[in-house]
Amino acid sequence: MRTKNSAWLWYPGDFEIHQGMLQNFRREERGMGWPAYWYIDDCNRNVKFMRTYQLKESTQFTVHAKGTGYVAINERKYRLGDKLTCEPGENQIEIHVGNISGLPSIYIEGSVIKSDSGWIASNFVNDAPAGHDPLFTQPYQDPNVIDYQTKMVVPVSRQAVDGGVLFDFGRAVNGTLTVTLAGPRSVTLCYGESETEARDVERCYYKQESVNSTTPIRKRAFRYVFVPNVELGNVDLTAIHEFVPKTNPSSFKSDNKLINQIWDVSTETLNLCSDVFFIDGIKRDRWIWAGDAYQANFINQYSFFNEDIDKRTLLALRGQEDIKQHMNTIVDYSMLWVIGILNHYQMTGDKDFLEMIYPKMESMVQYFIKQTNDKGFIYGRKNDWIFVDWSEMDKDGTVAAEQILLLEDYKTMLACGKVLGKEVDTYQKKYDQLYSNLMTYFWDDEKGAFIDCYESGKRHVTRHANIFAILFDMVDEDKQQSILNNVLLNDDITQITTPYFKFFEQDALCKLGEQKRVYQVLLNYWGGMLDRGAVTFWEEFDPSQHGKEMYAMYGDPYGKSLCHAWGASPIYLLGRHFIGLRPTEPGYKTFKLTPVLDEFKKLHTVMPIKDGTVTVDKTNEQLTITASRAGGSVDYKGQTYELKANQPTVIA
Amino acid sequence: MRTKNSAWLWYPGDFEIHQGMLQNFRREERGMGWPAYWYIDDCNRNVKFMRTYQLKESTQFTVHAKGTGYVAINERKYRLGDKLTCEPGENQIEIHVGNISGLPSIYIEGSVIKSDSGWIASNFVNDAPAGHDPLFTQPYQDPNVIDYQTKMVVPVSRQAVDGGVLFDFGRAVNGTLTVTLAGPRSVTLCYGESETEARDVERCYYKQESVNSTTPIRKRAFRYVFVPNVELGNVDLTAIHEFVPKTNPSSFKSDNKLINQIWDVSTETLNLCSDVFFIDGIKRDRWIWAGDAYQANFINQYSFFNEDIDKRTLLALRGQEDIKQHMNTIVDYSMLWVIGILNHYQMTGDKDFLEMIYPKMESMVQYFIKQTNDKGFIYGRKNDWIFVDWSEMDKDGTVAAEQILLLEDYKTMLACGKVLGKEVDTYQKKYDQLYSNLMTYFWDDEKGAFIDCYESGKRHVTRHANIFAILFDMVDEDKQQSILNNVLLNDDITQITTPYFKFFEQDALCKLGEQKRVYQVLLNYWGGMLDRGAVTFWEEFDPSQHGKEMYAMYGDPYGKSLCHAWGASPIYLLGRHFIGLRPTEPGYKTFKLTPVLDEFKKLHTVMPIKDGTVTVDKTNEQLTITASRAGGSVDYKGQTYELKANQPTVIA
Repeated sequence: MRTKNSAWLWYPGDFEIHQGMLQNFRREERGMGWPAYWYIDDCNRNVKFMRTYQLKESTQFTVHAKGTGYVAINERKYRLGDKLTCEPGENQIEIHVGNISGLPSIYIEGSVIKSDSGWIASNFVNDAPAGHDPLFTQPYQDPNVIDYQTKMVVPVSRQAVDGGVLFDFGRAVNGTLTVTLAGPRSVTLCYGESETEARDVERCYYKQESVNSTTPIRKRAFRYVFVPNVELGNVDLTAIHEFVPKTNPSSFKSDNKLINQIWDVSTETLNLCSDVFFIDGIKRDRWIWAGDAYQANFINQYSFFNEDIDKRTLLALRGQEDIKQHMNTIVDYSMLWVIGILNHYQMTGDKDFLEMIYPKMESMVQYFIKQTNDKGFIYGRKNDWIFVDWSEMDKDGTVAAEQILLLEDYKTMLACGKVLGKEVDTYQKKYDQLYSNLMTYFWDDEKGAFIDCYESGKRHVTRHANIFAILFDMVDEDKQQSILNNVLLNDDITQITTPYFKFFEQDALCKLGEQKRVYQVLLNYWGGMLDRGAVTFWEEFDPSQHGKEMYAMYGDPYGKSLCHAWGASPIYLLGRHFIGLRPTEPGYKTFKLTPVLDEFKKLHTVMPIKDGTVTVDKTNEQLTITASRAGGSVDYKGQTYELKANQPTVIA
Repeated sequence: MRTKNSAWLWYPGDFEIHQGMLQNFRREERGMGWPAYWYIDDCNRNVKFMRTYQLKESTQFTVHAKGTGYVAINERKYRLGDKLTCEPGENQIEIHVGNISGLPSIYIEGSVIKSDSGWIASNFVNDAPAGHDPLFTQPYQDPNVIDYQTKMVVPVSRQAVDGGVLFDFGRAVNGTLTVTLAGPRSVTLCYGESETEARDVERCYYKQESVNSTTPIRKRAFRYVFVPNVELGNVDLTAIHEFVPKTNPSSFKSDNKLINQIWDVSTETLNLCSDVFFIDGIKRDRWIWAGDAYQANFINQYSFFNEDIDKRTLLALRGQEDIKQHMNTIVDYSMLWVIGILNHYQMTGDKDFLEMIYPKMESMVQYFIKQTNDKGFIYGRKNDWIFVDWSEMDKDGTVAAEQILLLEDYKTMLACGKVLGKEVDTYQKKYDQLYSNLMTYFWDDEKGAFIDCYESGKRHVTRHANIFAILFDMVDEDKQQSILNNVLLNDDITQITTPYFKFFEQDALCKLGEQKRVYQVLLNYWGGMLDRGAVTFWEEFDPSQHGKEMYAMYGDPYGKSLCHAWGASPIYLLGRHFIGLRPTEPGYKTFKLTPVLDEFKKLHTVMPIKDGTVTVDKTNEQLTITASRAGGSVDYKGQTYELKANQPTVIA
């Protein structure tokens, strides 16, 4: 988080909030813009940067800024962009920048006075260490413009069909097109994530008409493009894929080629859905959803281990200090956001970020507390969406699943607050009251499960609260087993139908030792998409559907996103529950592996940890585990093995 | 406020907040931008417009929008800009518009479905009737761009001096220049409100170098431009003055030419300082200050009677719902803002506006209450500026002047709340407590005056709290006389030195019947500026200063603004206290004149009232008063006369 070199600086959170706003306005459907349907913050318009230097000798510096303003040295004003001199002694520097439409930001070139860590930013209400991002470290950059890298993608096939030409780029592209015409003066571009969609000239999601070789073409996500009313040879297309590069320390190769392919396509899927932020999908919605982002970060932890995307996403979701409504209007999404910070801290050990975001966590949790009743139960207010899942659920009163998330939020405040030396007693009291009331009112001994809701008297059981109770360690082993048998493995309880909650369900099943079962789900559900020719994983997959109906969702024939972040969840399930890797102290200061690898005869996998990797090989029932850093241990078949840095541990 | 024709619509307050932000970033000094040094809100980025029509027959409409989005008719989405059809029956229309940098806004062309009053706007947190402005009623307009009208101004003189050419435009211009060159390839423009400033090539406030006939020239305020290093005849300049036109129903002609000229120059001054908003000055700061705006509106009431500028200014000052800090960081300015709304309502009777702004008044006053102590006294918190005036004052504890403003705020809430049928008992209780404690702790019987502060034990008296007590009717007639004698006419009490507070002082003196004294101040202070060649009235005038020192302020040789809104206060003093016109019910439903015209032998004056005018003529001790509307009465020398519409009332 800290930098000794110059970087572009802004009011902390503003870059992420501003770019997040742009992201949430980027949705397109059939020639219409579709801005997200919730309140959206923007960055501060007016920022002051402050720092005092004690100089032994005079030094020069130049302030580059995005916006209008000035530099003040010891209260005397100078122009932005001029080479300025500070004399020996104390120099109080203030830089004022206002920006009427973009991010107010500065970059200082100089040997002593420069825009490294140490500057305080003020929005004239609060002061805090200035924010920066590794994407913007050069004076010629503009933090209002993302420097996407580009890759040319040529079609793998061009085919005359339906009186036009169908281009297949062989992969999901998120970018623009260049058009070469020989004959027609202009053409129509019909895009598709599927061939079916591209060839549906009337109803495809993206279409651009009257395009010639100089027409600006909007950035879109597609694999196929169909150009109607043109002959093969009279039109050619080249795609320019845009991306923010990231490293991928992970790999997964086993004797099961299907699982390997599932891993690789999952990686491709998450990679595409995470440039600046974790978005839900590249074609639709392109929005930052807190629930989707929560899951994406778990997947990220076992693949790219990209801390920056996670931080940006958390900051963009939270917005400015004042809370206007729940994230994406959804109460449970706000609560998952808080829990996600604990996971981010466990993953990264980044105390600077925790310190920076803690006030925003605290105000978020205080916002929850304001909507709790005398039993400590959180309830939905007008315009609050108590989502949990699309599944049928008794929501006629306060809902169990939400209480479990709130309990985990209190645990998060206790854990994070203690790290920072904050006063957290009040959260312990809130936790104790809520926990006691949760068990009294929502645990049903007869059913051996949590009910949805007690106020209605229906005592209806769904999987959701019970899954959260497993994931967040809310019940003892007896009750865990009771939930496993009475709910998770009980076909009378309505099945989870959404991939969003399937993530949590598979996670819980693995936690209860049901890896074998989950392995079959991987092969069937994700393998099923590969059978249908998927190059990225979908928002949802129903094996019973075939043909055009596979692509429909939300009442739209092409409403389904075929490259959706949560589709990449096999990475998490394999890394967390089969390789069994997890941090036991923040930032993997210590970490543990509990491998469950019965399904694999041969395996070679590399998993990221903070500042390192762990390599796990399996051959002929022999396990070899090598960590690039100390602090690890392996629990395997009742034995514990300590790992030493770079020394393979062989377990026979 | 309501419109039956289409207008551009936005979330209420957003146009004013966005333009106000632009206004507060428009300050320039010696090649530097100088954004205002407080927190500045912007408009919402994401707005939804909603309305339901019950149609007897099908009808068509087109939605023009500034931003990205769509139109939904009965939940089906259509494109912005397309001609759309609604069928007979119920049609629920939603228009979503996101704008990443400007004002999200719509204009609907149609015979039945159009953007007239009746649309609800939502920022996804609050819903309220959409806002609009008479400046934006045509589909081809863009409410992000003010349509300034322009007027060409040619120099009244061109003069070879100091090796260059000095242009005098004979008036204050706020606009751009066109440059004609014969000889030099480029020139430098040095601007001045005064000749002295323009000729000071090094230190003038505005300067633009390397200008040729195609260089874009920034909008600036000036009367003089000096072009150095060029011969007369080799350069010519034409000014393009920009303004938002407004009507001026008022006029003032008396037998005293100096007073007439003071009136006219005051009118010119206020006119220049009020295009979209009341700003402090056209050269410097160009910012919207709540204190300055409060006074400008009083002046406006007796000249342009422009309700729109006042509404825009009130909305821009207040910003978005959440309050981050006091207006311009000044506690008393926030309190004056509240009082200003009562004055606006008295002036206009505009209940729609009152209804719209009342929630923002209420949250503002609640914000004050949060910073009151157990006695009900408001105190300054960290970063709050308890300004009152630049004068020396004992601020070592809670301050009397602030308490009087808070009392007047409570009275405002009582008055406005009652108009709207709101619950206001709590403000009465707050008022009673504070009033009683004000008199107990701040009134000093011995001194016959309010002291600044009681906690310090200094019992120091300044004029400010005592002036406010007179203006806001906080004391009975005995105490009024006591304040007049012990404070206002007491030379031992430090004089008011700022024109800002001089406004309040002259107002109070007139209220106590001291018109004769104030008349001399008009002739000396404002007449003094005219003696110095003023074409607009200044921020401050000290008759003892001559030459270059006249233009210095805030440690800057040209820091003084020579066209400053509050300089126009003679209009208010003459209209309110000499003509003696004031509304006695909101919107001048009833109104009263109490003329005090001993200083004038002959007079012909027209004063605005809501939807009309009052004409007052004086000749040979005979007064003739004609109102264009009923409701008026005249109190003159112990007699009351009822005015009938358009019938001259002659008082001999």
